[in-house]
Amino acid sequence: MKILVQKYGGTSLASPQRIQAVAKRVVDAFSKERMPMVVVVSAMGDTTDDLIQLSSQISSTPNLREYDALIATGEMVSAALLSMAIHALGVSAVSLTGTQAGIKTENIHSKAKIVHIDISRLRKELDQGNVVVVTGFQGFNDVQDVVTIGRGGSDTSAVALAAALGAPVCEIYTDVEGIYTTDPRLVKDASKLRDITYDEMLELAALGAKVLHPRSVECAKENGIIIHVRSSFSPNEGTFVKETSTMEAKRPITGATLSEEEAIVSISQIPDTPGVASIIFSHLAQILVNVDMIVQSASENGTTTISFTIHQDELPHAEAGIREVAGLLNAGEVRIDRDVAKVSIVGVGMISKPGIAAKMFDIFASHGVNIKVISTSEIKISCAISRRDGRKILQDIHAQFGLDNLQ
Amino acid sequence: MKILVQKYGGTSLASPQRIQAVAKRVVDAFSKERMPMVVVVSAMGDTTDDLIQLSSQISSTPNLREYDALIATGEMVSAALLSMAIHALGVSAVSLTGTQAGIKTENIHSKAKIVHIDISRLRKELDQGNVVVVTGFQGFNDVQDVVTIGRGGSDTSAVALAAALGAPVCEIYTDVEGIYTTDPRLVKDASKLRDITYDEMLELAALGAKVLHPRSVECAKENGIIIHVRSSFSPNEGTFVKETSTMEAKRPITGATLSEEEAIVSISQIPDTPGVASIIFSHLAQILVNVDMIVQSASENGTTTISFTIHQDELPHAEAGIREVAGLLNAGEVRIDRDVAKVSIVGVGMISKPGIAAKMFDIFASHGVNIKVISTSEIKISCAISRRDGRKILQDIHAQFGLDNLQ
Repeated sequence: MKILVQKYGGTSLASPQRIQAVAKRVVDAFSKERMPMVVVVSAMGDTTDDLIQLSSQISSTPNLREYDALIATGEMVSAALLSMAIHALGVSAVSLTGTQAGIKTENIHSKAKIVHIDISRLRKELDQGNVVVVTGFQGFNDVQDVVTIGRGGSDTSAVALAAALGAPVCEIYTDVEGIYTTDPRLVKDASKLRDITYDEMLELAALGAKVLHPRSVECAKENGIIIHVRSSFSPNEGTFVKETSTMEAKRPITGATLSEEEAIVSISQIPDTPGVASIIFSHLAQILVNVDMIVQSASENGTTTISFTIHQDELPHAEAGIREVAGLLNAGEVRIDRDVAKVSIVGVGMISKPGIAAKMFDIFASHGVNIKVISTSEIKISCAISRRDGRKILQDIHAQFGLDNLQ
Repeated sequence: MKILVQKYGGTSLASPQRIQAVAKRVVDAFSKERMPMVVVVSAMGDTTDDLIQLSSQISSTPNLREYDALIATGEMVSAALLSMAIHALGVSAVSLTGTQAGIKTENIHSKAKIVHIDISRLRKELDQGNVVVVTGFQGFNDVQDVVTIGRGGSDTSAVALAAALGAPVCEIYTDVEGIYTTDPRLVKDASKLRDITYDEMLELAALGAKVLHPRSVECAKENGIIIHVRSSFSPNEGTFVKETSTMEAKRPITGATLSEEEAIVSISQIPDTPGVASIIFSHLAQILVNVDMIVQSASENGTTTISFTIHQDELPHAEAGIREVAGLLNAGEVRIDRDVAKVSIVGVGMISKPGIAAKMFDIFASHGVNIKVISTSEIKISCAISRRDGRKILQDIHAQFGLDNLQ
């Protein structure tokens, strides 16, 4: 028997009125599709932030078991209210917490991975004709304590439930119409994609597209679940995230992104002996600094320069560690360039179409923009440039690669 | 091994700052008493009302399973925060939901009774040296769903836990210093009682003293648990609720109360045949009207008059039902007197001291106040009078019976 799995985000559930609208949508789908339904919910609006705020007023380093017990209540509230609202429309529904839904996680508080879903209770409720509303973002560990699975984890909960229940598609409802070729606030001609591959979606998510949590995309890819990202405020189809995009042959790239809050750190005159890169980046990983693009220059007089980009938010925390490791290596100066934006293009099409990188670099050149650092993967090219040039380059790339009239 | 059980109400936990103050108090007791501690919590401040408000925006007749799942989150939040705050003071603590704490209830949503507590998890956490913070007001049913036990139920949770764990005393922390001889807002000389019997406490609670939930007092009486009602904002001892008051010999009465929102309903010319009272009050019970004092006059010409008091809040709901049953019985007029206050005195001392009722009636007479209805139990006398006389009578009774300098 096919099962329909839907997930609604916090914006879609931000008020009793919106919860009623979601209930209406669920009941309509239930009547129309005539198949068992599981609905996964995030917490209402800013509830999770409010709970975190409460926690931070008690302690800046809260006990993580209690932190999880606290913030998991947000989804319990929205799940109970949505189930109530579905009942009020005459359809029987039952809300289940992560524990009741059998979502077993690792025993790592606040960022566990889901290890297994025991679907017996879910199956029983579905068999009784109930719409089952499940709290996203949480499960339980060996000792039956509530464990959360990291922010944005509700997407992952939904995809994992779809996989456990054998649902082919997981519908993720959000406040935008789908996945766009770029941020519509930066480029007014941004087009909604009809489909996108898992890998492209992962690159876009890593570059800051916040619509889907990367873990949910990985989980969908592993289990062959199609994610349908769509708006809870509109009846339109959204974007299908799936293995093979039907459009990939036609389009060289799928999306373009801009991050305006980057910095480039350069450590010069590092003695060019084996293992120096490892020392630097192990050290930064230990102090939990996320490094992005890494470039090592060719050796000169037995020394080398290593540069990398990090998000500006990380700088205050990272700087001391960077200077420490530079000292450790007897390196020269540490320079930090804060005038940095990162422009990226993503697309599986670039694998089979040579010249994409060249075309991109050409666009920088035509604007007289100097590229500070380049990094590439099979399906992504990122360039760090001066911040003031970011938007105009993004817009021109979007137009030159034909992203503004994708169909 | 002795165990210390404390319960903190919503006012004591209304903000992160107050939760930290409670944590300090718990940690102080834990260090000083050197015994295992269980702390039962209500929801923070108005949280439960806020959740009920959310529910009522979804449905005026919410599904009760979901209603329970919703409102039980209030205690989960306060329990996690208090446990966090105890941790922050360097003492290890663990919060448990009603389900985790093994509090098994009947399968009646929103007003279940506790049927059993499986203390194995509690015991394990206590043995590991944890202060255990338990959510009040909730348990779980046969199918592991969350069930709440009625408003004010956190007191009952605490007493039931004390009984299950073999604790001799349950400390109930609230926003007043203890149980008073009367409402201190009405009589400025009201004295704090050092002790009070279960039965007296039950009568006072039935008369509107809101400090303790009557069910918790019944549960304490059944299990021989001493309840120590005290303020979370002061170090003073409060009032001990226990079987034998050491003071009972000395004091004729323990407390006096005034309710200013009563009404007297009189149904006249009821054919005086067996069973009429039963018909009237079964009918009112069916439509959930709480009747208090009942008086039936002596029969005259084959008819009788039945009068009873009800709270004015119940009138709008009750009136049609009352007129209906009067019609059913071919009775005469239904009169409703809204100018009613009820003054009551309570005390086990009155059993052994004749003349208490006479002394009370004498006070009414000396003020020229007409008594409309009288009802008595072994340890209580209530009189309905005109509302305008209520406060002065209460004050005079309080003084005449020596309640203002009890020690």
